[in-house]
Amino acid sequence: MILTVTLNTALDITYRVRELRPHTSHRVTEVTERPGGKGLNVARVLAALGHQVTATGFAGGATGRSLREQLTRTHGLVDALVPVAGATRRTIAVVDRSTGDTTQLNEPGPLITPAEWSAFLEAYDDLVRSAAAVALCGSLPPGVPVGAYAHLVRTARAAGVPVLLDTSGEPLRRGVAARPDIVKPNADELAELTGSHEPLQATRDARRRGAHTVVASLGAEGLLAVNTEGRWRAAPPRRLTGNPTGAGDSAVAGLLSGLVEHLPWPARLARAVALSAATVLAPAAGEFDRRTYEELLDQVAVTGEVTAA
Amino acid sequence: MILTVTLNTALDITYRVRELRPHTSHRVTEVTERPGGKGLNVARVLAALGHQVTATGFAGGATGRSLREQLTRTHGLVDALVPVAGATRRTIAVVDRSTGDTTQLNEPGPLITPAEWSAFLEAYDDLVRSAAAVALCGSLPPGVPVGAYAHLVRTARAAGVPVLLDTSGEPLRRGVAARPDIVKPNADELAELTGSHEPLQATRDARRRGAHTVVASLGAEGLLAVNTEGRWRAAPPRRLTGNPTGAGDSAVAGLLSGLVEHLPWPARLARAVALSAATVLAPAAGEFDRRTYEELLDQVAVTGEVTAA
Repeated sequence: MILTVTLNTALDITYRVRELRPHTSHRVTEVTERPGGKGLNVARVLAALGHQVTATGFAGGATGRSLREQLTRTHGLVDALVPVAGATRRTIAVVDRSTGDTTQLNEPGPLITPAEWSAFLEAYDDLVRSAAAVALCGSLPPGVPVGAYAHLVRTARAAGVPVLLDTSGEPLRRGVAARPDIVKPNADELAELTGSHEPLQATRDARRRGAHTVVASLGAEGLLAVNTEGRWRAAPPRRLTGNPTGAGDSAVAGLLSGLVEHLPWPARLARAVALSAATVLAPAAGEFDRRTYEELLDQVAVTGEVTAA
Repeated sequence: MILTVTLNTALDITYRVRELRPHTSHRVTEVTERPGGKGLNVARVLAALGHQVTATGFAGGATGRSLREQLTRTHGLVDALVPVAGATRRTIAVVDRSTGDTTQLNEPGPLITPAEWSAFLEAYDDLVRSAAAVALCGSLPPGVPVGAYAHLVRTARAAGVPVLLDTSGEPLRRGVAARPDIVKPNADELAELTGSHEPLQATRDARRRGAHTVVASLGAEGLLAVNTEGRWRAAPPRRLTGNPTGAGDSAVAGLLSGLVEHLPWPARLARAVALSAATVLAPAAGEFDRRTYEELLDQVAVTGEVTAA
């Protein structure tokens, strides 16, 4: 199975309103809810691709119960979330019906106690042993030590399990130093990590900091991947318009599924770009359209050069 | 006990943000949650005044569970909500931290099935028999017949239990025709019911439509009450600035508590105005400050003329 870690899970709520106008009252005409947080998005895409996935992290309170109830409906996904006393955060996306413009309200997330963090570490140690790969995704909730991902990377590596890290800021900086197999920063995260706004140079710098493979997601330009074997660029066949929510998480799912299926890097990147593009084009935020994905898969252009052995 | 009916209960959520700006992302710095819907607000104030209260209506889903968990913490309040398959709606008040300006997002509420409505009617028939008074408050959720309040008024009157109705639109129009003991419209609701914007004339018209006593809440000007015994005006001692959320519900609690304590009308109105004012002045929306209430109680000016017997 593939293990995904979401320390700051969320109940993602979408409201449709006619038009958001500050300091007035709005009738919400449509409400949708789904489990959120980057690692759970990755898990859902992996499950849709037919992989066995186990999702861990934290969940608590009434929002945590809702989230877990909805997870049970995802075929192929095992819920191994660790219960906490605080309530799982909500995120609310308020979508203007006519334009699709979105206003986001994000709750901070529950405070994780030292005992809850220890309980998670114990569960993670067990789960990692039976995992074919691990994804560590998203922000840290209050109370979790800033070096959390570095610790989780080292545990996976000690168990001989490949580990992908997708986070930002100081947790990324520390996590990279623990030598993860893959990091997948976007352009902003990469620039923040390395101080460089030039993708290729920044990607190389991120490798020097410890990551074996750096896959930078460059928005509409697709992915840039660099490791000891070579470097590749993978781009969607055309400019896509749609909702980019979850596109990065779909890319992570593409990379991980390709890893456990032992696909060569160009095929992994093609899959990641096609999944990401199919997510942008899907009507529901964070979902992907399978037919679009399959159509795009052959159209993704991957170029690269392989390092001389 | 006093019975309050809230057919469209809500989980009232308040978010504090720096400043709501459409089409951007916001960190919510403070989250508060409480049981809402007008009848539950009335019940909470009655319980705070030392009355035994039973709250009925509908609750369902994860939001309904949260709401019920929080109700159990209110001393003196018995939860007799009827479970439904749909989820209790959320209302979200987004408060700008610097100015206090509030943007409101209201979910529509669950669809009530005919079987759920029947189950409620059966529960209500039982509860009403042991009630000293009944309050019917707020809007109707989807699926509940528009003549619902008229039916509930007639049931209470048949059981000899005084009944107060606080709603708007067609449910108010039909409910008034069933001859409730008290209706408490605000100026807008009264004008919509009667077509008149002149409060005294509109109040008299509302009485002709069937209400025994009409108590019109006129915002900063306080209350105007008219019945066969006479007519009264009760006004707060000064202009109040604050959050008017829940002020009308506190007034209803004042009227009902005065009714079951057999207070004369001027004392009931003084209590209703003082509670309402203490709610406007309280820092938390919908709460009331007991000391402010007690201070204001002696300062409310009630003027009136009693009909010659």
